[in-house]
Amino acid sequence: MDRKEALELVKPHLTEHRYVHTLGVRDTALKLAEKEGIDLDRVETAAIFHDYAKFRPKEEMRQIIQSQHWDQKFITYGDELLHAPAGAYLVEQEIGITDNEILSAIYWHTTGKVNMNTMEKVIFLADYIEPNRKFPGVEGTREEAEHSTDGAIIMALRNTITFLMKKNQPVFPETLSAYNDFIFNKKSASALDK
Amino acid sequence: MDRKEALELVKPHLTEHRYVHTLGVRDTALKLAEKEGIDLDRVETAAIFHDYAKFRPKEEMRQIIQSQHWDQKFITYGDELLHAPAGAYLVEQEIGITDNEILSAIYWHTTGKVNMNTMEKVIFLADYIEPNRKFPGVEGTREEAEHSTDGAIIMALRNTITFLMKKNQPVFPETLSAYNDFIFNKKSASALDK
Repeated sequence: MDRKEALELVKPHLTEHRYVHTLGVRDTALKLAEKEGIDLDRVETAAIFHDYAKFRPKEEMRQIIQSQHWDQKFITYGDELLHAPAGAYLVEQEIGITDNEILSAIYWHTTGKVNMNTMEKVIFLADYIEPNRKFPGVEGTREEAEHSTDGAIIMALRNTITFLMKKNQPVFPETLSAYNDFIFNKKSASALDK
Repeated sequence: MDRKEALELVKPHLTEHRYVHTLGVRDTALKLAEKEGIDLDRVETAAIFHDYAKFRPKEEMRQIIQSQHWDQKFITYGDELLHAPAGAYLVEQEIGITDNEILSAIYWHTTGKVNMNTMEKVIFLADYIEPNRKFPGVEGTREEAEHSTDGAIIMALRNTITFLMKKNQPVFPETLSAYNDFIFNKKSASALDK
């Protein structure tokens, strides 16, 4: 599928605001992918469809997660988590994307996971730092991303966990596991000195 | 064992600074225990011995954790975690304490755990807020403890996780599980409105 077709397929599923965000994620993901040396076309597809399920009814998304026997914590740890796994399912069913790396990058783009591959990292980080994002900490994470993708992901995970705890929200355990995984394995990331 | 004997037994194992801290934990734990309506003598014993292993050689503590087949993450997630489980083992072996609730309160006093019982809560919180403790956030946690033990523990867990992440240290997963457990189960804690 070419870029134009992909954008036409996703647009009806998004608000204008979310479509602009999607374009930002696409642009940022392509930059990161180029730096990381991975396939640009597949990253672009993952970026374009990463929020495909964002505005689906919550009950539909919960039923997908249940029917697929996926981790029920996607349901119990906050509705914000539903659209990533549900999106992976729906782009396969409705768009016909079967590339497992693309589907996995969509599936994990909100929570992160242990042992992320490069496409998962690129989509996760692009979603966090694309230029339309405005929240405390995003500037520092953008700067770190210029030097180290892993370092920037550590900052993004840390900010997310801190943000959730400040709001007395539960924290998806895999998100902390992802943080620990980067801390144990990416000792060279420059964020570790900050 | 009476209080005087317990203090005499622990004192040689601690620095002066740590002994003063232990007395602070003892006093704070007794106040919390009174409020929570649990047995004061057993809480006092747990408090007096909670840091019994604090100054043991790290290698000795690691060997205890390994020989007992306890969670290896106590070894890999930072040396600060060793003395709590090692202490539970050593007070049983060397002091002869066999009360499982006392041993468990010592075992979990640094990390916290899911589904803490009242003695575990009291020792964990007293260790965090006793009057000699001075670090950012301790005052707010002390104030919250006046109203809600659970609310104060949520704050302590949150502060601990945030502090570790700021230092790029790994976070013991059970500590996050403890936080999530309190968030899911203690919706009435007054800290949740802050």
